[in-house]
Amino acid sequence: MTGLTIALDAMGGDFGPKVTVPATVQALSYFPSLKVVLVGNKPDITHQLVSLNYNNASRISIVHAESSIGNDISPSQALRSSRGTSMRIALELVADGSVDACISAGNTGALMALSRSLLKLLPGINRPALVSALPTLGCHQSWLLDLGANVSVNADTLFQFAVMGSVLAEAQLGYKPSVGLLNIGEEAIKGNDLVKRCSEMLQQCSVVNYIGYVEGDQLYTGKANVIVCDGFVGNVSLKTSEGVAKLLLGSMNVHIAANPFKKLAAKCLFGDLFNMLNHLNPDQHNGASLLGLHGIVVKSHGRADVSAFQHAIEEAVQEVERQLPKKICDRLEAALLERQY
Amino acid sequence: MTGLTIALDAMGGDFGPKVTVPATVQALSYFPSLKVVLVGNKPDITHQLVSLNYNNASRISIVHAESSIGNDISPSQALRSSRGTSMRIALELVADGSVDACISAGNTGALMALSRSLLKLLPGINRPALVSALPTLGCHQSWLLDLGANVSVNADTLFQFAVMGSVLAEAQLGYKPSVGLLNIGEEAIKGNDLVKRCSEMLQQCSVVNYIGYVEGDQLYTGKANVIVCDGFVGNVSLKTSEGVAKLLLGSMNVHIAANPFKKLAAKCLFGDLFNMLNHLNPDQHNGASLLGLHGIVVKSHGRADVSAFQHAIEEAVQEVERQLPKKICDRLEAALLERQY
Repeated sequence: MTGLTIALDAMGGDFGPKVTVPATVQALSYFPSLKVVLVGNKPDITHQLVSLNYNNASRISIVHAESSIGNDISPSQALRSSRGTSMRIALELVADGSVDACISAGNTGALMALSRSLLKLLPGINRPALVSALPTLGCHQSWLLDLGANVSVNADTLFQFAVMGSVLAEAQLGYKPSVGLLNIGEEAIKGNDLVKRCSEMLQQCSVVNYIGYVEGDQLYTGKANVIVCDGFVGNVSLKTSEGVAKLLLGSMNVHIAANPFKKLAAKCLFGDLFNMLNHLNPDQHNGASLLGLHGIVVKSHGRADVSAFQHAIEEAVQEVERQLPKKICDRLEAALLERQY
Repeated sequence: MTGLTIALDAMGGDFGPKVTVPATVQALSYFPSLKVVLVGNKPDITHQLVSLNYNNASRISIVHAESSIGNDISPSQALRSSRGTSMRIALELVADGSVDACISAGNTGALMALSRSLLKLLPGINRPALVSALPTLGCHQSWLLDLGANVSVNADTLFQFAVMGSVLAEAQLGYKPSVGLLNIGEEAIKGNDLVKRCSEMLQQCSVVNYIGYVEGDQLYTGKANVIVCDGFVGNVSLKTSEGVAKLLLGSMNVHIAANPFKKLAAKCLFGDLFNMLNHLNPDQHNGASLLGLHGIVVKSHGRADVSAFQHAIEEAVQEVERQLPKKICDRLEAALLERQY
């Protein structure tokens, strides 16, 4: 790894510097040539660093921010009045080239709006997409996009999501990933016009290893490495998953309450089930990436603990090393060229 | 209950007369004034009746059908060439007023297309909707629509779904049910244009007890009695639920395989978890109703066993007694009148 620098919105998330600072210190020990710019309230950050006995000023620098963006701020409010906030300053550092990437556990809508406004879209991209890894059965790895950044898209945009997801997955997997479109059936006649049009485009595109439609019950089977849908469907699907996990655990509690053997059995399994539930919680998917921008932005969930936030830092480091924005540009250019001929 | 007659597509579903005939015989003992017309292969049906020692010809009649509609037949194929099939004849009996309702466990797409073509839409309805009860935590009851009948709708159609779902739920609950729109957030600014426009219409409508947006993770909490979405989102959401249940059971198996105590615990709970999984399987929601037609059509799942198919018969009987199509007409008329003033 050559030297790289990441800006952290140290104030974002439910726990602010109490999580972001220890996670940074731990990540620095894993990545010897990493440098971090912590953006936020300087006294609070310094206090955390002192309590951790960390004093290597050559690897951590602090940029003071007067305020942070609350969770109740709408994207348009964030665009209008976020000057001087820790999230905005961290993104500005990416925009002016001072750092290689930025991470925030703050307000997702604000982060997406500000990222798009400050970093600008890559050529050929209509909309940025939010992507995250999915838990799957077996050894397959899967990613789902878009997860809520775009509630209504056209077939071109969905096609671009497929290309971007494919690049992200390939960088991680080391081989050309399979890409599927989320639909209500596997047959060609199924689905709405949007999905059908995008499917035709992908069928004619050799740049993406398109395998056809994927149904909701195949999301977690690893049938496709990359599953593409609009942000409305992606968000509902992921949140429904969380709801089901809660329902199953909740009804298990109800069913077993009367039976002491079952109660004991449930106690024995609760930790495993609880971990699986958390794994399905969309807010808990740590290190969701915003793709399609001139710059790397990773969204950590708001309730991330130190180890989860560290995972988000790792995700950002990997994306910098893999030069994800450049790869997306190249791949999209190849796909568009192919469509011209 | 006054006398009522229901036509059954006796050949539909994975098990045909082996399930539909015993379920009919059992249902007849529950509903003393019910009569049933079994539509299908006469020798097969008679064989089942004989083996059950049932010989009350005044309550069961058989209408012979030469063939049945396969699961691989598309809706348009079904419209073109279904003459003489058990499903079509059963629907024709509803259309000509010979029976009060019809039930089929056959091909869903074909059933919807034929129902719409033979029974016609109620005045003021753009599209029929498929609705089913959801499992929920606690004592609340919830229904979700549309479940796949309509992949792209406009705000008027979604509004009609809300009215239809509300009438169905009220008939069952005995009070005015709460109605929510499935969306990606609870705030007014969230969602796509379709959802926002429909939300405005529902806010101005006193006929429906509209409570606002419902998120995916609230589907199974009973937050709203009726949850409305387009068929694409409804289908993906329900199938995702099935996928999550399978993932949880599957990963539990993986996690516990190495630990004998956990293995024993899982064995002890497997029945409960398995039942819950089945309850989440969209195909297993028995007695999904097709709303918005001049007539009552209930869709049983293809893999229904005798008791599940009996539940579908019960659903049809209740809808006839509650005069659901008439109530939908009246309620929709009231809603449209209100919008004119």
